[in-house]
Amino acid sequence: MSQPHVAIAGATGAVGQELLRVLEKRNFPVGELTLLASARSAGKTMQFRGKDYKVQELKEDSFRGVNIALFSAGGSISKKFAPLAVQDGAVVVDNSSAFRMDPDAPLVVPEINPEDIQNHKGIIANPNCSTIIMLMAVYPIHKLFPVKKIIVSTYQASSGAGAVAMEELRTQSRDFLDGKEIKPQVFPYPIAFNVFSHNSSMDVENGYNQEEMKMVKETHKILHDDSIRVSPTCIRISTFRAHAESIHLELEKKADLESVRKALSNFPGVQVIDDRKANYFPMPLEASDQDDVFVGRIRYDVGNSDGSELELFCCGDQILKGAALNAVQIAEKLL
Amino acid sequence: MSQPHVAIAGATGAVGQELLRVLEKRNFPVGELTLLASARSAGKTMQFRGKDYKVQELKEDSFRGVNIALFSAGGSISKKFAPLAVQDGAVVVDNSSAFRMDPDAPLVVPEINPEDIQNHKGIIANPNCSTIIMLMAVYPIHKLFPVKKIIVSTYQASSGAGAVAMEELRTQSRDFLDGKEIKPQVFPYPIAFNVFSHNSSMDVENGYNQEEMKMVKETHKILHDDSIRVSPTCIRISTFRAHAESIHLELEKKADLESVRKALSNFPGVQVIDDRKANYFPMPLEASDQDDVFVGRIRYDVGNSDGSELELFCCGDQILKGAALNAVQIAEKLL
Repeated sequence: MSQPHVAIAGATGAVGQELLRVLEKRNFPVGELTLLASARSAGKTMQFRGKDYKVQELKEDSFRGVNIALFSAGGSISKKFAPLAVQDGAVVVDNSSAFRMDPDAPLVVPEINPEDIQNHKGIIANPNCSTIIMLMAVYPIHKLFPVKKIIVSTYQASSGAGAVAMEELRTQSRDFLDGKEIKPQVFPYPIAFNVFSHNSSMDVENGYNQEEMKMVKETHKILHDDSIRVSPTCIRISTFRAHAESIHLELEKKADLESVRKALSNFPGVQVIDDRKANYFPMPLEASDQDDVFVGRIRYDVGNSDGSELELFCCGDQILKGAALNAVQIAEKLL
Repeated sequence: MSQPHVAIAGATGAVGQELLRVLEKRNFPVGELTLLASARSAGKTMQFRGKDYKVQELKEDSFRGVNIALFSAGGSISKKFAPLAVQDGAVVVDNSSAFRMDPDAPLVVPEINPEDIQNHKGIIANPNCSTIIMLMAVYPIHKLFPVKKIIVSTYQASSGAGAVAMEELRTQSRDFLDGKEIKPQVFPYPIAFNVFSHNSSMDVENGYNQEEMKMVKETHKILHDDSIRVSPTCIRISTFRAHAESIHLELEKKADLESVRKALSNFPGVQVIDDRKANYFPMPLEASDQDDVFVGRIRYDVGNSDGSELELFCCGDQILKGAALNAVQIAEKLL
């Protein structure tokens, strides 16, 4: 697999387009490239390394000869086509939620649990964006001072719902400023100058939505520790493509803040932005289009006196580290 | 004081304008009305009950004959002029942070600690907006199931920084959509389609900003209980005038969720919006221009198994219940 044949399923979506850019930027050794999408998008032309590629319709036989298939076309497409790709000999890196909790599919953040990749049986799952961004900030601390509990509130960008959602934020914001009537189409509620509980379906019994339960279950799977308690509140806000998260940590022992800062600074894929004097901390606009997850507001919990609870705030590009970049990093480990 | 002479210091600001509207809407028995502002705004005309009032320059002798003075012109103005107003016989309701921690000044949310008003020595302080909105959601629960710890992350509107900040959000959003360069003036960082740590000065030792420490200290004072631990993360987002807050509660004992819902529903000034099936919960756009604080996402913490931790999400109009309405409610209790 030194020059693998790479296929992208869902090539024309927000993440699909970014997958292409990331492969190019990271000099991924693409031998052959197959771009796949629904019939509606088939026929479009996309560029890769200065060459035009025609998008083909995703079909059952699309993966013949493909070595690595990057899926980003939603859960139902993955469920149907990923096993077919595996049958045809490809290794699938799936960006949907379809296989994340499948015991046969490793769920991987390459900086955290790269060793899990080797256990794959054809499909490797890319975690949920909010989970990846949170764990990039939490794992370096967890290694030093094991985490007992994570209480997290998210500030999630529209990009998580795709390119159409980003366009809705753009259009709706302009309409709002022009005093026009707001008609939500992609999201259930107005996204412009508003905030709402994440638009994934809710477990009416426990009152947590799917996005939140992903953060709970995926954290357990990635860290191989079901005892870590995760209490998430997932909220959409009017930003375009970087998520922010406010994180409260309960640790098993007193933390040393300098060691925490050092561990975060030294962790690949993390940038510490934590200037108290200048009041300068991670912001979605600055984290957008960046590979690294920005971490700041690192402090002892003012509501705790024994130094065993910390608070921090992080931002990460939802389309990059939250999706496309993480998937390509997994693919790199496969080579 | 059946028809008191009311003065508003800072009448032309975002809160000042709202004070006037609230007095009118609530049929506050205004005998005489004096509108005060800086020399820059003096001479402007404002309407109250269909009558024009000329704004006068705030001076040392402005409060002669005034019975109730509502201050909303910033801390330094309050520090200088509120004692003068008291000397002249007025009772001051102060919306700034100047006297909030003064042991002689009661700090009051009328639904929570109205009895504290009677201890005033001329000045009653209006709490910080984030504190009021949080406590309106927490206090009804606290009465039934005492709260040990509050972990809160805010989603704060631009209005907290005044009318100029709201205008900056408007202008900057349009510039952003038009692809123009963003030049922050009121806020230190871009507010349009962004998120940043609250722009109040930070204690570089503990890493908490002033807004956050207000939530800690004011909660202790209002609830008369310094043992309640409060862990706030205050974040500005791109909304106009309603704050949202994601709240995690540790209680002294197991809560009964139905009792919690009932207590919130029955509490004056609170509306429960908590429809899990429809995924419909409090939103800033809907809470704007509303007197009530909206509370929803009321649930047992999924990261806790003994029912002693709860999570909820609330929204409240920052200019109304977070400032002007609460101040007028205090004034009503004075009558």
